Amino acid sequence: MSDIDRKRAERLMGEVGLDALVLFQPEAFQYAIGASAGVATMWGRAGAAIALVPADAISPLGAIASDHAAGGVRQKAPDVDLRTHRIWIDTVDLLGVKDPADIDDAYRAAGGGGARPETFDRAVSFNLLSDLLNERGLGGGKIGVDLEFMPAADFEALKRALPQVQWVDGSLLLRRLRSVKTPREIARLKRAAIAAEGGLKRMMEAVRLEASVRDLSQAWQSGAQDTATSGDFTLSGHWDFISVGPNLSDVRAKVTSGALIKADVGTLVEGYSSDSARTFTYGPPSPLAREIFKALETAFHAGLEQIRPGNSFATVHDAMLRSMRRDGFGEYYRGHFGHSVGGSVGIEEWPFFSASNQEVIAADMVVALEAPFYGQNFGALMIEDQFLVTPHGAECMNSLPRGLIDLARRDV
Amino acid sequence: MSDIDRKRAERLMGEVGLDALVLFQPEAFQYAIGASAGVATMWGRAGAAIALVPADAISPLGAIASDHAAGGVRQKAPDVDLRTHRIWIDTVDLLGVKDPADIDDAYRAAGGGGARPETFDRAVSFNLLSDLLNERGLGGGKIGVDLEFMPAADFEALKRALPQVQWVDGSLLLRRLRSVKTPREIARLKRAAIAAEGGLKRMMEAVRLEASVRDLSQAWQSGAQDTATSGDFTLSGHWDFISVGPNLSDVRAKVTSGALIKADVGTLVEGYSSDSARTFTYGPPSPLAREIFKALETAFHAGLEQIRPGNSFATVHDAMLRSMRRDGFGEYYRGHFGHSVGGSVGIEEWPFFSASNQEVIAADMVVALEAPFYGQNFGALMIEDQFLVTPHGAECMNSLPRGLIDLARRDV
Repeated sequence: MSDIDRKRAERLMGEVGLDALVLFQPEAFQYAIGASAGVATMWGRAGAAIALVPADAISPLGAIASDHAAGGVRQKAPDVDLRTHRIWIDTVDLLGVKDPADIDDAYRAAGGGGARPETFDRAVSFNLLSDLLNERGLGGGKIGVDLEFMPAADFEALKRALPQVQWVDGSLLLRRLRSVKTPREIARLKRAAIAAEGGLKRMMEAVRLEASVRDLSQAWQSGAQDTATSGDFTLSGHWDFISVGPNLSDVRAKVTSGALIKADVGTLVEGYSSDSARTFTYGPPSPLAREIFKALETAFHAGLEQIRPGNSFATVHDAMLRSMRRDGFGEYYRGHFGHSVGGSVGIEEWPFFSASNQEVIAADMVVALEAPFYGQNFGALMIEDQFLVTPHGAECMNSLPRGLIDLARRDV
Repeated sequence: MSDIDRKRAERLMGEVGLDALVLFQPEAFQYAIGASAGVATMWGRAGAAIALVPADAISPLGAIASDHAAGGVRQKAPDVDLRTHRIWIDTVDLLGVKDPADIDDAYRAAGGGGARPETFDRAVSFNLLSDLLNERGLGGGKIGVDLEFMPAADFEALKRALPQVQWVDGSLLLRRLRSVKTPREIARLKRAAIAAEGGLKRMMEAVRLEASVRDLSQAWQSGAQDTATSGDFTLSGHWDFISVGPNLSDVRAKVTSGALIKADVGTLVEGYSSDSARTFTYGPPSPLAREIFKALETAFHAGLEQIRPGNSFATVHDAMLRSMRRDGFGEYYRGHFGHSVGGSVGIEEWPFFSASNQEVIAADMVVALEAPFYGQNFGALMIEDQFLVTPHGAECMNSLPRGLIDLARRDV
């Protein structure tokens, strides 16, 4: 099922005079259609899968997918107008076949075998798109494309193949659409946050003197995986940036007494990635670490107070930077103090809590707020949580305390 | 260290009249420069990292990287002419700092803090590229860009920012360069193949009645990981397509007596992915499975005989398809029977063993040859091995026997 709010899409397209969105990025296809774009997208080229989102909200979604991915699209998005193109992978239904001599007949029963392209045939795919647009009366329309994804080589070919269309960059509109989540997207992000936090709890148990970054990463992963399993959901991916001690790029570092341990982690559920971070020590942190952490905590709360519908993303950045300045950090700066989270490419999704971003915070956005400090020859500190924006403010998806925790004292 | 053979690059660029290659894809940056392109590439946009490869083989490589990634570039590629741009992540060296009041001085000692962009500033990055090109006398040159990667939105901005340059698509040239490996690249791919095979051995031990796809995947992963650890190398990634039984898309399938088990797997070493596959059963396979597998084995060997320098990639496809036809498979077809392997985007790298590919096989290519058969309501069968092309033929990087192995008989 699509995660696009078609009414909102109609309104946003209307504002910029678009007749439709045509999306080529695999993540955008998954978002628009609600099914996998398939394996032919592995090279990052355009045309392996294409989603058509007409501006008219009652006009059905259209999709072009490979014959290999088509089964999944039909199953998960039966209402989508699907056209298929052949890719390199040959499959035949052998139900009931016992004799090799009957295999050719099995092929013929499904329309036959025959030649297949080396990978996928972009020209065939673009022709199917042309058909789809012409049938909807969109063949001469003004159409938004995700040009922030689409390789220039493929865009040139698209313009040659469909010269009547007025192509414009629909990337910002797509980003805007994605920034407000459906209940199903919110549920994915909650699950992802819960799994990541389960991993952090397991990692906290694994922290001891001489524990390595890899030990902590493995503990985190197994805890995240087990949390998902016991919650009866599966992870489609995971990532972690764990640093231990004063050398931020030392991937072989081991825990020493009082050294900073920063874990910035996320898991993915159906392609949607969580993002959260905590900082620990094993043994008392230095006074300097305590001071810096205190400033980060104050900044974090200053930012959090500004996360509510109607405020701009810049308001949050401004509040956090002012807080750091008030606490004496005159040179510290961050390009952003957090961002949207979701199922787009990259862990961090637009909009960002940055100085220049006048985008307005709205209900049903899911955002990660982060207050990090990276001190080379010192250590990293970070507080990050994930929030659902509600009509009244921000609802936290994490439950671990945000403080700088000395794990040597956990049994005290 | 770069993996580009600069002399060969000079020759290939000379053939098409290029003055330089300018590469924006993160994988291409890693390949050209020998260091990570950094975290600012996560959105798939162009400009976060740029590699300059002048045609003149004695002219040094140039790179544009973020201040966050610069340390890694300087360490791993000290001879590269590096220019840096600021990204959103703030870091300060706190060596010797004990008092919060001294933090601002620590910033100033390194050139100060100050504003940072929301993510990265494409315009700044393009200006640095303009400087680099002008200093080399390439500012009005004919320059190849990786337009099969570069988002159309970014290419438009590049053309506006550097209007004197004659930009052409350098993608094919880049693919050609990448298809012939250096000894270091070959060593990565050997390690990756060894780890993947270690995983397959562990998976074979885990095959029993009622074992699930997930059980097999986990056994494979742990075996691959342990093989890397005991070989004193690390994996930068892994992937597996394991199918069990007649329903090829059933991710919850369990092993039943005689059901086909196909494991198509790979691990990554420094970004270079192996690719190999084996087929098993637990209990005797059906006569039909035996017949199909026999045909695949014959086709595999027919293809393997053609892998030698001087033959085209198409020759291999032709030999394998003819073999299948001789064995009575009149409708079976594959778009390709294998491909190059390496560190490019996607597991499968160009050139492909396809019907139309006249690219010539050369020594020091590393290729995966594959003979698969996908029967829905039957099962998947596949033989795939990875080969180094030598002056005399193909040297296999795998050692597991290629037969259809009944694992219930392994202890007999």
